[in-house]
Amino acid sequence: SVNPDLASERQTASFSVEKLTAWLDGGAEYTRMRRAVVQAIESDPVFSTENQYFQSQNERYEAAVRKAVHLQKKMHEMGWTDNSPEFKYIYRAVSGDIAFLLHRIFMRSITVLGSDKQIAKWIPLATQYQLIGSYAQTELGHGTYLQGLETTAVFDITTQEFILNTPKISAMKWWPGDMGRSATHTVVFAQLYIHGKCYGVHPFIVQIRSLQDHSLCPGITAGDIGPKMSFEHADNGFLMLQNVRVPRENMLNKFCEVQPDGTYVRRGSQQINYFTMTTVRISLISDEVVMPLMKACTIAVRYSVVRRQSTLKPGEQEAKILDYQTQQEKLLPQVAAAYAFHFTNNYLQELYNRGYSEIQRKNFDMLPELHALSSGFKAIITQFCTSAVEICLRACGGHGYSLLSGLPSLYTKILASCIYEGENTILLLQTARFLIKCFKAAKAGQPIPPSVTYLAAVKLGKCPARNKLDFLSPHIYTEAYEHMAIRLISSTAAKLQDLIQSGIKKYDAWNQCTVQLAQAAKAHCHYITVKNFAETVEKLEPKAGIQTIMKHLCDLFALHGIFSNAGAFLHDGYISGAQMDMVTASYLDLLPVIRKDAVPLVDAFDFTDKNLNSALGSYDGQVYQRLYEWAQKSPTNKQVSPAYEKYLKPLLHNTLSKL
Amino acid sequence: SVNPDLASERQTASFSVEKLTAWLDGGAEYTRMRRAVVQAIESDPVFSTENQYFQSQNERYEAAVRKAVHLQKKMHEMGWTDNSPEFKYIYRAVSGDIAFLLHRIFMRSITVLGSDKQIAKWIPLATQYQLIGSYAQTELGHGTYLQGLETTAVFDITTQEFILNTPKISAMKWWPGDMGRSATHTVVFAQLYIHGKCYGVHPFIVQIRSLQDHSLCPGITAGDIGPKMSFEHADNGFLMLQNVRVPRENMLNKFCEVQPDGTYVRRGSQQINYFTMTTVRISLISDEVVMPLMKACTIAVRYSVVRRQSTLKPGEQEAKILDYQTQQEKLLPQVAAAYAFHFTNNYLQELYNRGYSEIQRKNFDMLPELHALSSGFKAIITQFCTSAVEICLRACGGHGYSLLSGLPSLYTKILASCIYEGENTILLLQTARFLIKCFKAAKAGQPIPPSVTYLAAVKLGKCPARNKLDFLSPHIYTEAYEHMAIRLISSTAAKLQDLIQSGIKKYDAWNQCTVQLAQAAKAHCHYITVKNFAETVEKLEPKAGIQTIMKHLCDLFALHGIFSNAGAFLHDGYISGAQMDMVTASYLDLLPVIRKDAVPLVDAFDFTDKNLNSALGSYDGQVYQRLYEWAQKSPTNKQVSPAYEKYLKPLLHNTLSKL
Repeated sequence: SVNPDLASERQTASFSVEKLTAWLDGGAEYTRMRRAVVQAIESDPVFSTENQYFQSQNERYEAAVRKAVHLQKKMHEMGWTDNSPEFKYIYRAVSGDIAFLLHRIFMRSITVLGSDKQIAKWIPLATQYQLIGSYAQTELGHGTYLQGLETTAVFDITTQEFILNTPKISAMKWWPGDMGRSATHTVVFAQLYIHGKCYGVHPFIVQIRSLQDHSLCPGITAGDIGPKMSFEHADNGFLMLQNVRVPRENMLNKFCEVQPDGTYVRRGSQQINYFTMTTVRISLISDEVVMPLMKACTIAVRYSVVRRQSTLKPGEQEAKILDYQTQQEKLLPQVAAAYAFHFTNNYLQELYNRGYSEIQRKNFDMLPELHALSSGFKAIITQFCTSAVEICLRACGGHGYSLLSGLPSLYTKILASCIYEGENTILLLQTARFLIKCFKAAKAGQPIPPSVTYLAAVKLGKCPARNKLDFLSPHIYTEAYEHMAIRLISSTAAKLQDLIQSGIKKYDAWNQCTVQLAQAAKAHCHYITVKNFAETVEKLEPKAGIQTIMKHLCDLFALHGIFSNAGAFLHDGYISGAQMDMVTASYLDLLPVIRKDAVPLVDAFDFTDKNLNSALGSYDGQVYQRLYEWAQKSPTNKQVSPAYEKYLKPLLHNTLSKL
Repeated sequence: SVNPDLASERQTASFSVEKLTAWLDGGAEYTRMRRAVVQAIESDPVFSTENQYFQSQNERYEAAVRKAVHLQKKMHEMGWTDNSPEFKYIYRAVSGDIAFLLHRIFMRSITVLGSDKQIAKWIPLATQYQLIGSYAQTELGHGTYLQGLETTAVFDITTQEFILNTPKISAMKWWPGDMGRSATHTVVFAQLYIHGKCYGVHPFIVQIRSLQDHSLCPGITAGDIGPKMSFEHADNGFLMLQNVRVPRENMLNKFCEVQPDGTYVRRGSQQINYFTMTTVRISLISDEVVMPLMKACTIAVRYSVVRRQSTLKPGEQEAKILDYQTQQEKLLPQVAAAYAFHFTNNYLQELYNRGYSEIQRKNFDMLPELHALSSGFKAIITQFCTSAVEICLRACGGHGYSLLSGLPSLYTKILASCIYEGENTILLLQTARFLIKCFKAAKAGQPIPPSVTYLAAVKLGKCPARNKLDFLSPHIYTEAYEHMAIRLISSTAAKLQDLIQSGIKKYDAWNQCTVQLAQAAKAHCHYITVKNFAETVEKLEPKAGIQTIMKHLCDLFALHGIFSNAGAFLHDGYISGAQMDMVTASYLDLLPVIRKDAVPLVDAFDFTDKNLNSALGSYDGQVYQRLYEWAQKSPTNKQVSPAYEKYLKPLLHNTLSKL
């Protein structure tokens, strides 16, 4: 039975939860498909995550491999393929806890970087799991800065082989997933040397384990890098190469080839490589970043209407904690952010699809914009959502800190997204470089990409809002964000120029502006997010009450951003102190309004209890009962600890005398 | 041998690290004593934390008990007692990973809340470990709000006993440390009922496990609450009571007693109870909050001069990442904060000591101020330091995410400090209540406590700074903080009054102001922190270069706060946009200055390698070597996973045919 405190929240929804879910899914037919996939996975006991919070790294790994192998069977049974529309729901359904994700990256890298001949050789082997692939790029000493990789691949003309080596410890491959214990093959990125000359980093297919008995191949040292904050199921590995020889054909050579005589030939555009990174960064936003936040919001909001604490009105029953303004102010902006970034993701997907079709027509014009946006958005969305999950965790007090709440593992996992696929600060600076370039071009009257045309427009000097209700107009707050972004970009561009004109070297000047450049890049992405949210709401038909609540959320997201970054808007007086008070008033006024729909808003994310795997967040709100039931399953309760016989008993029976 | 990249950083220190360490310790004699304690503990293999990152919750618990029992022996050997000056260094030396901490709380609660007779009975038993104590306050359904506890203790006149019960699942005791598997006794907080009338929450000593065989006593259900984000070593427990009877003498009765005929007698001041909470909140700041931040800074700063990535100047060697402005801007404010809060802790200790001696003279006047400050500072310091540790973790990129860096466990542990000993938002609102009261008193010309006298003073309307160097004057920035705090307190007081005058009920008005009240409380504590840092620096003799670097850190801490909360200073024009640019310039200028001393500044915290337990942070900077050595010790490398025979081999050998 559903806890009445949670049930009552659902009776007063101002909109149809089912319709909102369908809209988020992109149509009711997708909701049906997603639910069917989730149902198929969750009803299969092999995919159970029931004891996940109690498992060791070894147990998690074993479970992840078991699931990955079983998934092949399941897909066969269900008639799903890697290209069928169901595929994208599988990852959500298994909650990401599955092996062989790098096997897919292995395959993609061959598809993108390999010749037709290489694709014809390796892809069928990989598809049929006659090998297990990995992707060995990152080293102990180098991450985001790929040019610095130290692994070497020297071409030996006499044998027509590349000789791969790990020349020093910092060159050891470190972190690649599926490599520590599973992979038989991997793509190794190494500095190519021919006749003593370095040609930069290139990819090589290297076998690391025997296909017969899984023993390490000659010259290979490999293993697991040990415990991490999360991803216990993944065998992130290390790899050392000692004179490992691979045939000339194993260098992926769609874009460059070493000919038998050692001649190095480059062909085609390298720009497509950027596109690969862009693809990965955009593709991770939905599943790895926005979805964990949606889960965290679901857990925290449901718990906050079940948890009662202290009295709000003297003499009354203890209040639901979501009735406190401070709790609303913690959680509701995070719910708004989950929606905001869901829509940003749609925006990026569209942009990406357009870019992709242009590229297929050999038009690479959109690449810089796509690269800049995907970098900046990867950075701000991962950063924002990580903080948001932490806020949700802390908003649940002590119980949020229990693994059984599900929140700690959401947090420790999403945190990694700030680090992988490009360190966020470096990504923001890449976006900033693009913005500064566009800003200069705009000033010079040159054409600039659509997402930055606002840099060319002349703007009002002051915000025209006259009362707090004006701040519920999307054009008022969108323009405020636009103004703020322009100001930060233009003032940093000016500082950069001043420094250079004062005689400081260009690279020093750049370094001295990087704190502000990163701020400018964030401001740009924040502006686009607000603008896109507002436009999304505008396009909605006013049916089933969805538009009204989405408008509230959009307002909340925008005003929360102004309230929390007040300095950026007040700095040049675009928003005055008095107007900031109006922002604050409107912002705080929105909280109790949205609070009424808080539970329906998270219900619409449509996570099953199994998917949430949270004692606090289940649909029925039986929080305390479930915490108690789950705790009893803990291995700490399965045996009498040897500590009693060894230490406690002697202590209690003899006291200090024998010590 | 020390990595030359780290060694070179130490050669250019602008001050004597040893002198700074001694000053932080409160004198060289304390440094010597601390090192002797650390040496005694670390040289004893029983206290080793070598494999900690690989251990399960069960193994961590067993180790914590082993250490706690062994510590008794060690203390005896070394001639240390609970009251000797060495005692406070033991916790640091064992890195907190030790059992029976709640046994001490058990003893303290009896000392504070028990009668002389009760003390005489229980304290010797506890001191000699003839029992193991715990402290059962928090319930599944109630944490910070103690009045809401649901456990009952009904007085039975006929047998002269209290009958304790857990009337519903939410009343189950949940979280108490040392209770899940170790404790034989605990202090249970329960609602006292006599003749059907409730007298509120009172403490009762209850035996929960047999002293003979450790089995649960009749009517007791108890166990471990399962996995948490950290504190794997602690057996946080649950406890259910079913008609558990304890004699009348087991209610701790210094302040109130139930007489044999059921008459309830209250005696003495209850105010002292507040003082206990104050004691705990102040005592945790140093060891549980500031020290983890110091460790995180040590690890991140050392790693940032060993890690080289990308080129800063074209054609040069890859740069140390600490030479990038963005990395400096991440880490150096955290180093400054570690110092700032170390000094705040000294300030609070002094205030506490003064308060304590007043109380011993039966003068309770200082209690409200002490309570308000300890609440507010507990909240802002835990909040600030938790964010700071997270910044340090993320600033180390992927390797920071490895448990072997030591940073994840620092983070997951310090995060708990935001939740335990009072939820931070609730604490801030208690501080705010005090501030609003004092503000009103000041306006009415009534006397107010020393820490808030600034609320009575009339202040300048504008910041007088005219160039960026002016912002390196402590009185300029201290006054800016002061002004900001007054503004937030007074404007929130005004809003509160307006709402009440407009007819809104007092409790509703309060709730509608809580977001701003919490901000005001933070502003007050931030101001006191800056002021105290500046005063501490001022009092320093300009010897050994310590004053100069401390002044830089103080400036950095203060300007970082203005830079990051610009809106609060710009709001009413106290600081203008042009002045904010000066703040930013001075702030960014300080980074490369302090960066030169970054390593000496963290060396001065004087952590041993064993204490840091970090592959990234060791004194010798052999980062990559150590990561590799430690990873090899992981249980994931100790065996061939059964996953190979079970899943991988069938997959690779048969491909999909048999699936």
